[in-house]
Amino acid sequence: MSTLSDRFEADYLIETPVSPEIAAAAMAGEQSSGTFVSVPGDTPELQERSAARIEYLEVIGTTETPALPGRHSGETYYRAKVTLSWPLANIGPDLLNLMATVSGNLFELAQFSGLRILDIRLPDAFGAAYPGPKFGIAGTRRLSGVETGPLIGTIVKPSVGFDAQQTADLVRTLADAGIDFIKDDELQADGPNCPFDERVHKVMRVINEVADRTGKKVMYAFNLTGEIDDMRRRHDLVKELGGTCVMASLNSVGLAGIIALARHTELPLHAHRNGWGYLSRHPMLGWEYTAWSKFWRIAGVDHMHVNGLRNKFSESDESVVRSAKSVTEPLFPSKSCAIMPVFSSGQSAVQAGETYAQLGHADCIYAAGGGIMAHPEGPAAGVLALREAWNAAIQGTTVQEYAKTHPALAAALRKFN
Amino acid sequence: MSTLSDRFEADYLIETPVSPEIAAAAMAGEQSSGTFVSVPGDTPELQERSAARIEYLEVIGTTETPALPGRHSGETYYRAKVTLSWPLANIGPDLLNLMATVSGNLFELAQFSGLRILDIRLPDAFGAAYPGPKFGIAGTRRLSGVETGPLIGTIVKPSVGFDAQQTADLVRTLADAGIDFIKDDELQADGPNCPFDERVHKVMRVINEVADRTGKKVMYAFNLTGEIDDMRRRHDLVKELGGTCVMASLNSVGLAGIIALARHTELPLHAHRNGWGYLSRHPMLGWEYTAWSKFWRIAGVDHMHVNGLRNKFSESDESVVRSAKSVTEPLFPSKSCAIMPVFSSGQSAVQAGETYAQLGHADCIYAAGGGIMAHPEGPAAGVLALREAWNAAIQGTTVQEYAKTHPALAAALRKFN
Repeated sequence: MSTLSDRFEADYLIETPVSPEIAAAAMAGEQSSGTFVSVPGDTPELQERSAARIEYLEVIGTTETPALPGRHSGETYYRAKVTLSWPLANIGPDLLNLMATVSGNLFELAQFSGLRILDIRLPDAFGAAYPGPKFGIAGTRRLSGVETGPLIGTIVKPSVGFDAQQTADLVRTLADAGIDFIKDDELQADGPNCPFDERVHKVMRVINEVADRTGKKVMYAFNLTGEIDDMRRRHDLVKELGGTCVMASLNSVGLAGIIALARHTELPLHAHRNGWGYLSRHPMLGWEYTAWSKFWRIAGVDHMHVNGLRNKFSESDESVVRSAKSVTEPLFPSKSCAIMPVFSSGQSAVQAGETYAQLGHADCIYAAGGGIMAHPEGPAAGVLALREAWNAAIQGTTVQEYAKTHPALAAALRKFN
Repeated sequence: MSTLSDRFEADYLIETPVSPEIAAAAMAGEQSSGTFVSVPGDTPELQERSAARIEYLEVIGTTETPALPGRHSGETYYRAKVTLSWPLANIGPDLLNLMATVSGNLFELAQFSGLRILDIRLPDAFGAAYPGPKFGIAGTRRLSGVETGPLIGTIVKPSVGFDAQQTADLVRTLADAGIDFIKDDELQADGPNCPFDERVHKVMRVINEVADRTGKKVMYAFNLTGEIDDMRRRHDLVKELGGTCVMASLNSVGLAGIIALARHTELPLHAHRNGWGYLSRHPMLGWEYTAWSKFWRIAGVDHMHVNGLRNKFSESDESVVRSAKSVTEPLFPSKSCAIMPVFSSGQSAVQAGETYAQLGHADCIYAAGGGIMAHPEGPAAGVLALREAWNAAIQGTTVQEYAKTHPALAAALRKFN
């Protein structure tokens, strides 16, 4: 947690064929008041007021092969960790211009054959300037009625292609199966095959009917990704019809759009990270999730996707765990901005125990597709098996032992192991 | 130019250790109605209505070393070009959800050790759904009074640190030097050291005074990057005080914010691409500029940064030229969305001739910092030398020949060569 007041900081992993000290100075200069040629008005006072500082520099290794192509080459490339700080007065507590300052042109600088932003630390003023998560963990539990353990969730599949009635029919099956959380796929938005408004009307009728009968209202994250005014209008419709969650694609909408939406929401905002691969897939380029997710947490999202253990994508389990743990670490003394991580991608009862062990808590959404729908005894047994797998983990029992007295779990382990 | 009507397309460069046909099918499935496990309601009719199609697949080479780390490995990695198409009815003409569809999760798929999006082609409906550039090339020439040749421009330096009065003083020097275009650095926004409103008031007083005296109004791109309502308010202030351009950082604001701004603007929108490095720097990951810039052109920006020849960054000249040429290629039969490319980064009179030769026209903003301020005879000679270098190129004369009768150019060549 940050205790900064008048400066903000960012940590980087760099690779460079020039001296790391010179390279770090180039970073600081490019992203603040440094100039390559002497210009009028550039005084020691101006530098004192505005320059970025190198707070930390540690060479962690060398390599003979550059990670990325570029203009400069050398015989040895140094890898180092660098921390820079900037005066808050350069931008004020402004997330948009923070983005241009801590990231901006850095990744293109010719001195670097690798540059990745690892983390950021901000003064409390940033927490005060933005909505932050309005619901977070406690609010999501209250609205979903899930007091302990993970929210067991799923994603409508096929991703796109169902009309509104087909979507509602699937929601009925899942609601009857006792599921806690359902989301639209990020490919499903407001196309003519499945218009947003019609989908919300048909799905909420089912969810409200089931809630009236059972007392349990499924949390459905409707994908309202779109222009600002459309997102606000769609949010209002979901709220009006009794819905309890909306979803947006962060890399489609962007930061100004998410802030505008977050200032408006009266429902939890479920954040989808599709596109994350182009920001992160090369280990010496782009963003670590810890740094990137802080922008959205401060802006005001309540749930963020973090992939899952043994997922169908390319991310390592270690990276998934690091991401998931990072989003509940408190950001400011006055406001933690802790949110719920969302696990998904090839998840079933099989990974539940390890996920709990690695995460250290059960404040999460645990979403499975085939892991529920493909359970041999049907979706209700699929949902039950996931709950049982988490219960076993939380009680400190092995899943094999627990399965002896819990047949839905036993069947899931036979199917998915 | 696209002649599609009911489908949209995207081109990719992929690298994969599995069969390219299987890999391309995985892309199409992941980004449309494909499913890994059979689910109820997935019918041939649904697939016909919603599935992405492989339109083109060409293996272009193999490698033994994967470009990116991942879960799958092999002895041989195939590189291929792939074109996919989707039914427009999946999303309608919606840029935000287009982003999630053509990019989205693709970059993370375990089958790929490299994936880069090269281009997109869209039906005319997208052109009709968004503002597009309201000023573009012709409108920028009209407002700047530069009828032919490039707009000669510069960027306020130091990037950040001047207060409003110091900025205005520099603007006076540059306006007196006859410059066409000035922009805020992307690090300068609305911090307490140099508040936006005060900067606009002080700078526009200078620009208006010079315009009253000389008849030439310098186009100044004020960086209004911020929240949506703030950007609209700042735009209105610039317009009210007689300003002729506003600027925003695309990767800070994001697509929904830029669309909201573009629906509001009555001035050219100057688009800064800072952050572009993390989207593009690895040749087998992320975005080609041709694809990425189309989102912003359709949304409604009027100028886009493309770096410069022999720049201080890591990008090759060939890539710079490809980017710059792409932004004037017409996008739709009803609307070209052609915009002005902005050259900058280490530019001087030295690169002007080659830039013109490679670009094939002079409809651009050509920005130099040191190339103007560090001219041995002062900034007025710096601006003049840049104009002379471009005039020589446009007239088909060598810059050396032209310099014989143009002393400002001669001095620039001695200084910067």
